[in-house]
Amino acid sequence: MIKVKPSNPKGVRDFLPAEQERRQYIIQILQKHFELFGYQSIYTPSFERFETLAGKYGEEGDKLFFKILNSGNFLEKRGQSILPELEQNLNAPQKTAGLVSEKGLRYDHTVPLARFVSQYQNELIFPFKRYAIGPVWRADRPQKGRYQEFFQCDIDIVGTSGVEAEIEIIDLIQNVYKALGIEVEILCNHKDLFYGLCKKYEIDSKQTDVATIIDKWEKIGVDEVRIQLNDLFESHSEQIDLFLNDISNPNLLDQIQPDNEFLKIGIDAINELRKLTPLQSVKITNQLVRGLDYYTGFVFEVVCKQMEYGSIGGGGRYDALTEVFGLKNMNGIGFSFGLDRIYDVMETLDLFPKFENKQHILVLNIDKDALSKNLDIVKKLREHGICAFLFPSLSKIDKQLSYADKMGISKAIIIGSEELKTEKVIIKNLKKRTQELVSFDLAIDKLLETA
Amino acid sequence: MIKVKPSNPKGVRDFLPAEQERRQYIIQILQKHFELFGYQSIYTPSFERFETLAGKYGEEGDKLFFKILNSGNFLEKRGQSILPELEQNLNAPQKTAGLVSEKGLRYDHTVPLARFVSQYQNELIFPFKRYAIGPVWRADRPQKGRYQEFFQCDIDIVGTSGVEAEIEIIDLIQNVYKALGIEVEILCNHKDLFYGLCKKYEIDSKQTDVATIIDKWEKIGVDEVRIQLNDLFESHSEQIDLFLNDISNPNLLDQIQPDNEFLKIGIDAINELRKLTPLQSVKITNQLVRGLDYYTGFVFEVVCKQMEYGSIGGGGRYDALTEVFGLKNMNGIGFSFGLDRIYDVMETLDLFPKFENKQHILVLNIDKDALSKNLDIVKKLREHGICAFLFPSLSKIDKQLSYADKMGISKAIIIGSEELKTEKVIIKNLKKRTQELVSFDLAIDKLLETA
Repeated sequence: MIKVKPSNPKGVRDFLPAEQERRQYIIQILQKHFELFGYQSIYTPSFERFETLAGKYGEEGDKLFFKILNSGNFLEKRGQSILPELEQNLNAPQKTAGLVSEKGLRYDHTVPLARFVSQYQNELIFPFKRYAIGPVWRADRPQKGRYQEFFQCDIDIVGTSGVEAEIEIIDLIQNVYKALGIEVEILCNHKDLFYGLCKKYEIDSKQTDVATIIDKWEKIGVDEVRIQLNDLFESHSEQIDLFLNDISNPNLLDQIQPDNEFLKIGIDAINELRKLTPLQSVKITNQLVRGLDYYTGFVFEVVCKQMEYGSIGGGGRYDALTEVFGLKNMNGIGFSFGLDRIYDVMETLDLFPKFENKQHILVLNIDKDALSKNLDIVKKLREHGICAFLFPSLSKIDKQLSYADKMGISKAIIIGSEELKTEKVIIKNLKKRTQELVSFDLAIDKLLETA
Repeated sequence: MIKVKPSNPKGVRDFLPAEQERRQYIIQILQKHFELFGYQSIYTPSFERFETLAGKYGEEGDKLFFKILNSGNFLEKRGQSILPELEQNLNAPQKTAGLVSEKGLRYDHTVPLARFVSQYQNELIFPFKRYAIGPVWRADRPQKGRYQEFFQCDIDIVGTSGVEAEIEIIDLIQNVYKALGIEVEILCNHKDLFYGLCKKYEIDSKQTDVATIIDKWEKIGVDEVRIQLNDLFESHSEQIDLFLNDISNPNLLDQIQPDNEFLKIGIDAINELRKLTPLQSVKITNQLVRGLDYYTGFVFEVVCKQMEYGSIGGGGRYDALTEVFGLKNMNGIGFSFGLDRIYDVMETLDLFPKFENKQHILVLNIDKDALSKNLDIVKKLREHGICAFLFPSLSKIDKQLSYADKMGISKAIIIGSEELKTEKVIIKNLKKRTQELVSFDLAIDKLLETA
């Protein structure tokens, strides 16, 4: 037998029971809130056709979705011609990947949603409010806090342009993080304000590149931003200074002249939102751009106030996402809660409740003749909704008690030969180190009483 | 803009809200029972290293796991030498796949579990009871009822050889299907009985092939089984007849002479299980083999009694699964509930409860000036745990009422200009077509009363 080293692939993680319990705790809170706000679950497959994913996340993104090798004889399917084609394009991995792969793992939940809404437009009820909780995959270089598989928990409202959608999502965000015990700040900006500023200072010819640089603000600081912008435009340095002055001015909205259409739209939208949401519920942050090509209106990002960590959720309005699938005028807005990052923050801040198996009952397995009685007890307890089970093999009592202890189980039931004879059961409280002897008939009632 | 046809890849499915609600209903029942029986959730990543998956599912299985193309420039990484290697192995897809791929999507939850248990053996508490609910992927040719992505819901007990584990799992199976409303038969066999029969009739030299043929019994019938076995052995026809007589004899266990060690072990094990489980809870089925190489003791398969469908769950004991990962003497047993097949059966038999949004409350959005009052109402209702939300844009009342109707929402709240003036709210029962006028102050109480 060839021995294989047991290890998971680099960049992805296993979760042991204690971790997984916490992850499920977060998911449960998210799901409860999503449903309370009227969002419905949908499911899209883990992989999508190449064409669905390609070109939606910018050039960088195209490199970062995992491609699935065509199954069967992927070389022979296309005949001998594939080899010269591969050779010709040896340095064009996007092209060669296309020769051997037709599918990719989803990169987020948003593009699959756009595909889904376009595909089932006649079956869905609009405005369509959905949620999706599940893994997404990115072929990023693995590093601390960045994984190749991570869970996104998304809500979206598709088919409305009303600012009421923004308000609802802000309310939902606040409720979710509050329930998790995380104090957050919701950073908010409007893409048109950004475009308007670019236009005002005549740097809109390269606004995608500008957005990418501005997005790094928090990470690299304003001086490095200035250097990179100057590099980008060479001769434009004065305009760039003015642009940077504006974008870093916390009172910009009240001071700026809306001298182009973008600025006017952006400022009006932000002012309307401020009027309609409780004071200080969002923090207008002009430097927030969220480079992703598909956002068109408000963008949001959530950061934790209790520690420095970066974004633990983000989203925004996308008004043209379904157009590439042939469906026009389908406005949408979405927000994505990052499970793995929320987990990290809650772990660091010690925000998880104690999960204990205290209520669980272990029936010890020390006498073969007691088996049917033991089985009877676990069955009855479970019928009453109590987690109870028999230790799955006859073994030494110490081993079984040690198992209960490690598992955090505080109650054990023992029927030995003596008890079997006298039709009694020992109920042992492992935490208090007490025990009592109860007759067969009364055992269940007694256990239910103290459960 | 290049237009893309919105469609999902062949062989995988989307689930719309109504389907997804039903799937979640099944998952919730499974999860509740898994936890009631003391199983803990773990998570393993969606993809595994090639070596982890390869060779675990037989030759056929190796072809059927999806391979992920190495990211970046997958051709250049290995230098120019890759092209001649690809050319040399043009007809050996397993080999060429290995040149461009190092990871594969999981094919089931069992092999990842074996890898997991071996990897974390020092951190886990044994006997280790886990569950896993999630998709697995197989590059099968798509056909009706067979998908390339489907959900398996697995429970396993690792680290015990006691028959108590089998008993617990049978109990769990019965409870789960009963809770779902499906009447089932649990087919059961022991691999040693099968090996023993092969040995007895001297066809054990090719017992893996024999197993594959016997597994098709239900599908192809005894005559075709006989033909295929004869083809396999050519001259062995009389022995094969005797073998088939035995294996199809429902009273075999009581009549057969256990004249080899395998037969003896198999028969003793089955008799012990029969003694310990309630009468008729399992149906001993000698033709049940479950070809998968890793089973070593009892095997189970669940079929629905109310309709012909094939297996809706299966599992068995595997006593050597972790050995390939260097961990010896780690006995295990597992069972997998097939979500997609359970869904199909429940759908056909009309076993799903009616899921209604009756309790939900839609706040209509017909007057801009009522916005803050409307937001106040949804907020308060949600604080009381009632799913309530504002229609996300100002629009015609008919459109909003039609939306409520399609969504199955039976209660709407309306504040128009008249109501705003008089500080009143209209509560409309959309099913009964009644409505009442209530003051702002009393609206929430009134709604809670009738919720």
